[in-house]
Amino acid sequence: MLSFSSDYIAGAHPDVLKALVDTNLESMAGYGNDIYTQKAIEKIKKEIDKPDAQVYLLTGGTQTNQIVIDTMLDDYQGVISATSGHVNVHEAGAIEFSGHKVLTVDTVDGKINAKTIRSYLELFYKDGSYEHMVFPGMVYISYPTEYGSLYSKKELEDIYSLCKEYQMQLFIDGARLAYGLMSDECDLTMKDLARLCDVFYIGGTKCGALAGEAVVFTHNNQPKRFNTLVKQRGAMIAKGRLLGVEFDALFTNGLYYEIGKIGIDKAKKLKEILASKGYEFFMKTSTNQQFILIENKKMEELAKKVDFGFTQTYDENHTVIRFASSWSTTDEDLKLLEECL
Amino acid sequence: MLSFSSDYIAGAHPDVLKALVDTNLESMAGYGNDIYTQKAIEKIKKEIDKPDAQVYLLTGGTQTNQIVIDTMLDDYQGVISATSGHVNVHEAGAIEFSGHKVLTVDTVDGKINAKTIRSYLELFYKDGSYEHMVFPGMVYISYPTEYGSLYSKKELEDIYSLCKEYQMQLFIDGARLAYGLMSDECDLTMKDLARLCDVFYIGGTKCGALAGEAVVFTHNNQPKRFNTLVKQRGAMIAKGRLLGVEFDALFTNGLYYEIGKIGIDKAKKLKEILASKGYEFFMKTSTNQQFILIENKKMEELAKKVDFGFTQTYDENHTVIRFASSWSTTDEDLKLLEECL
Amino acid sequence: MLSFSSDYIAGAHPDVLKALVDTNLESMAGYGNDIYTQKAIEKIKKEIDKPDAQVYLLTGGTQTNQIVIDTMLDDYQGVISATSGHVNVHEAGAIEFSGHKVLTVDTVDGKINAKTIRSYLELFYKDGSYEHMVFPGMVYISYPTEYGSLYSKKELEDIYSLCKEYQMQLFIDGARLAYGLMSDECDLTMKDLARLCDVFYIGGTKCGALAGEAVVFTHNNQPKRFNTLVKQRGAMIAKGRLLGVEFDALFTNGLYYEIGKIGIDKAKKLKEILASKGYEFFMKTSTNQQFILIENKKMEELAKKVDFGFTQTYDENHTVIRFASSWSTTDEDLKLLEECL
Amino acid sequence: MLSFSSDYIAGAHPDVLKALVDTNLESMAGYGNDIYTQKAIEKIKKEIDKPDAQVYLLTGGTQTNQIVIDTMLDDYQGVISATSGHVNVHEAGAIEFSGHKVLTVDTVDGKINAKTIRSYLELFYKDGSYEHMVFPGMVYISYPTEYGSLYSKKELEDIYSLCKEYQMQLFIDGARLAYGLMSDECDLTMKDLARLCDVFYIGGTKCGALAGEAVVFTHNNQPKRFNTLVKQRGAMIAKGRLLGVEFDALFTNGLYYEIGKIGIDKAKKLKEILASKGYEFFMKTSTNQQFILIENKKMEELAKKVDFGFTQTYDENHTVIRFASSWSTTDEDLKLLEECL
Repeated sequence: MLSFSSDYIAGAHPDVLKALVDTNLESMAGYGNDIYTQKAIEKIKKEIDKPDAQVYLLTGGTQTNQIVIDTMLDDYQGVISATSGHVNVHEAGAIEFSGHKVLTVDTVDGKINAKTIRSYLELFYKDGSYEHMVFPGMVYISYPTEYGSLYSKKELEDIYSLCKEYQMQLFIDGARLAYGLMSDECDLTMKDLARLCDVFYIGGTKCGALAGEAVVFTHNNQPKRFNTLVKQRGAMIAKGRLLGVEFDALFTNGLYYEIGKIGIDKAKKLKEILASKGYEFFMKTSTNQQFILIENKKMEELAKKVDFGFTQTYDENHTVIRFASSWSTTDEDLKLLEECL
Repeated sequence: MLSFSSDYIAGAHPDVLKALVDTNLESMAGYGNDIYTQKAIEKIKKEIDKPDAQVYLLTGGTQTNQIVIDTMLDDYQGVISATSGHVNVHEAGAIEFSGHKVLTVDTVDGKINAKTIRSYLELFYKDGSYEHMVFPGMVYISYPTEYGSLYSKKELEDIYSLCKEYQMQLFIDGARLAYGLMSDECDLTMKDLARLCDVFYIGGTKCGALAGEAVVFTHNNQPKRFNTLVKQRGAMIAKGRLLGVEFDALFTNGLYYEIGKIGIDKAKKLKEILASKGYEFFMKTSTNQQFILIENKKMEELAKKVDFGFTQTYDENHTVIRFASSWSTTDEDLKLLEECL
Repeated sequence: MLSFSSDYIAGAHPDVLKALVDTNLESMAGYGNDIYTQKAIEKIKKEIDKPDAQVYLLTGGTQTNQIVIDTMLDDYQGVISATSGHVNVHEAGAIEFSGHKVLTVDTVDGKINAKTIRSYLELFYKDGSYEHMVFPGMVYISYPTEYGSLYSKKELEDIYSLCKEYQMQLFIDGARLAYGLMSDECDLTMKDLARLCDVFYIGGTKCGALAGEAVVFTHNNQPKRFNTLVKQRGAMIAKGRLLGVEFDALFTNGLYYEIGKIGIDKAKKLKEILASKGYEFFMKTSTNQQFILIENKKMEELAKKVDFGFTQTYDENHTVIRFASSWSTTDEDLKLLEECL
Repeated sequence: MLSFSSDYIAGAHPDVLKALVDTNLESMAGYGNDIYTQKAIEKIKKEIDKPDAQVYLLTGGTQTNQIVIDTMLDDYQGVISATSGHVNVHEAGAIEFSGHKVLTVDTVDGKINAKTIRSYLELFYKDGSYEHMVFPGMVYISYPTEYGSLYSKKELEDIYSLCKEYQMQLFIDGARLAYGLMSDECDLTMKDLARLCDVFYIGGTKCGALAGEAVVFTHNNQPKRFNTLVKQRGAMIAKGRLLGVEFDALFTNGLYYEIGKIGIDKAKKLKEILASKGYEFFMKTSTNQQFILIENKKMEELAKKVDFGFTQTYDENHTVIRFASSWSTTDEDLKLLEECL
């Protein structure tokens, strides 16, 4: 069936797949000690121009969020997130399962800002019994956010500066980073991003890989014995080559950006189609996810013809649904969608 | 210094202390296998008229909340609590540390109600991706609440009925149970309480003991191998007699209720004094905690003469502070306070 | 460099890779809800002739061991394993990290037997303070073991019967299952295996897949809300198709067994070569791993020409090293090895 | 019934109890902020002559072991212990429950020595895949051990020196410290002990208190935000005064040593009685626990008249049982025992 349900409905980008096929019978060391993983790491460090960065390849988004947060925080610390943040809602409590509280800050558009975080911190440290509370040790944001919105460079600078003031770390979830960076609204580069946080990850799964996310510790701040910590959490795969070959391909000849570009181009057409059909946008974004309001009856009809994602009750009669584009979206898909709507 | 900072500022109630002294040199088995622990358990079961209840003595409130919630929930479940609930704010993330998310519901007066919880549940099960979210497996409330408010019998019945409908457990934190049950507003007995939840605890530390809380599993529903689970969490003390002797004393000749009664009587006078001095109440309660608004400057003055507790910013110039009474509050204390205010 | 270091040095078996390529652009649902995952599950259930079995695809071995053990055991239970068991030695403490003690039983050849386990259990339940100890709740064995040895059908029957007697579960780690089942020594089928345990996994990573292990709960005993438990542990990948397509291919036209057969055939030649060169075997096995003793000096020489694995000190001058074959081992590799030795 | 089952069969030492009674109605701050806790801490620091030590009062032994080990180790680290160590056997897996593997070293008499530990470490770091194993981060010993044996000063020096060489911490469990220090065999002081480890605890529960253990971090090495870490583990009690008053009393006028002395004196008589009755000692110790072999039939007889502890199967017909003395053992008790034997 026609699907706009998410950005992970296809397999690997053809160039990534080709790399897997081409290297398939090469004999390689396991657990990330293969040459392609090393090449991928070097390319990413060069891309962000950070010789002292450390890059680590993991398999999926929730796994990455859980491991980064748990290994970078002390036990007494929690992580500040938007109430709508992925770590707070859609990871089955993976952060709490690892022992850390998600400290929520309300938001309308998926973004949180330095001012709101500062209020949170001031209230916290003013509380007479803060020793009996969870210390805010990290700020988690996503770029783009769950609602497809983007932070400006200035907004990131403010948040990061606040983090330093309060000795907190800043972690940017880049599951959809390629689509964020190639958005017309984006005013920063991957290099800027690396300068404006302590750790971020370059999403692979949603941006051309079969599986894989590249965590970047931006300033020689990878937790000690990280290999062992990852193994202990069941997250190290024997054939690390899978991830190495993929990211090596994604960072060859600008493929990662090209993938983002296609997704954004298709998103633009998607927006036009949705607007032309008269749908009200819940969030009209510059990235690859578009959220519209739809009458429940109409939604049921539509669901027979096309897959969409992220249903959220809006009011008694309306629901918010999401259409996502990606590198795999075709003009044919868009044409079919136009006919369905 | 004069102190109304909390209900745990004194040692043990004299009758409890006497029991400890009287039994001190008796030779007893360890780990809760002593005769006084057994007697205390029987007395509590008799008090609530529940032969199939199981009673377990633990040392402190946070420990009890953490163990009850963690051992009664499955890993995929979290616990619904008021945003202001003790487990959500003042236990340093003990619930999350044990792997469970606290699922918050907003409240004004510390209470949550069946209607709000139902909305939460309906939204949850309507969400297309609820398998990727934390399942609500328990409702946690306290009696009295953090703000000294009380649930009516009808309110508890509604919540418990909802819990059964959604296969959730109801847990009542009774850290200050004696003061709740002896409040003029209270329309239920300990026996009613035991009928209206799956598990609750009878607070000892704040109600006459040096340390100790009695957890009551109301219908033969104590988690399997609970002894081992408690030991594994570092919560089993070798001289379980300490807790056994205390609760045996507290449940002899109605001492537990007498203790509550004194605290409530003193709270009434406390309220009168605060009102007579013209303070605005943030929460005027029928239990042993009273919350007033106070100008920050005045608060600083007052803090030199009397200890109070629970400071919470109200606005730029005002703070909410709490005065707590207990069985140890004397008329002399109240007179001195009147002079300070 | 020539490598016999392990059975995961190549990518995917060509037929598995072809399946990934052929299905790459098909639009599929995420998180294991795709059609290939469903087909793979059905094929596995048919293979073991167990309509009430439940099959779940995970990514790697340590992850699988950790999740199976943690979700099937209660908190108060630990898992019995050979001292040399993978979960006890080479998983960076993943089992303990999830809260469970590995209860060790000594072994010479990697196998443990019903008699030794029974002694352990009898001692345990005779101990006056067993409530203060970790309850044995599961037996973990691997087939083949870390040392390449195999259990006979009779041995498995005895262990499983003992497990039932003591209400413990039996878990068989089949990371190298293909090579075990195709060994000349093997006297059972995958169907037998499924009948003789509560849960086992069919190793993919070491037997033809890029990544992936298929967990089989043999009698409708998959832990409740397993999807959520897996997600919460960071182990659910968005593109579950990767695993689904792989296992669908592995269970089409007997590919899984063919893969095992190749590995075993190469292992036979490997053994011949090692024997002909006069090496003493530490463990001469009927599966795909061979362990020899080698003088330390000679080992250093050899290491320049060929990769081997699993070094373990034998005595001051000797080391145990391992040569592993797999589906990807070629006759050319064997010839080169013969020249190196 | 007459009991030699353990050293925790009585309540508090009369002087400790008196202190609790005398201070009972004083109004004090909670959570360890009371004046007696502060006084106890100062007295302990003075006793060990370590101005940069940090002292923290906890409630029980397993709790203390679990918290010290978990908060001082990194996630990737485990703790080396004798196979017979309390943390390895009789704490229901509390250490593993907190995520850390207990790395065992065999022993005959409950003691481990520098040489055996060194062998363990050398093997570990020689293993080609040690990154996939649990790093030894701490050595745990008890003084006296589970079998009542004592380390000499020289032995401790050797172990501590080895710990420093391998960047491991040394933790000494002093649950029965008073009896160890007052043994005739003891060649060190509490001050020596504090100099020869990173952390140790002064047992209260078994040495005169109702509950309580004083953890000493010997060189300004208490884990950051330790208050919060303790609270989060459910181990902070509201009326910290209980522990404060007890330890203040224990460290006033040498009471702690006096208590140890009485226990040792009674142990000497106990040994004489056991020997005179012709029992074979499994471990004849210089501290307060004596282990004898007894025929099973005779044991059953004896069990009707006196409580003993720690039963361990020796052979088909014999069991090892333990008799423990303490400050509460009376000459009358010993006389009665003599008659029973």
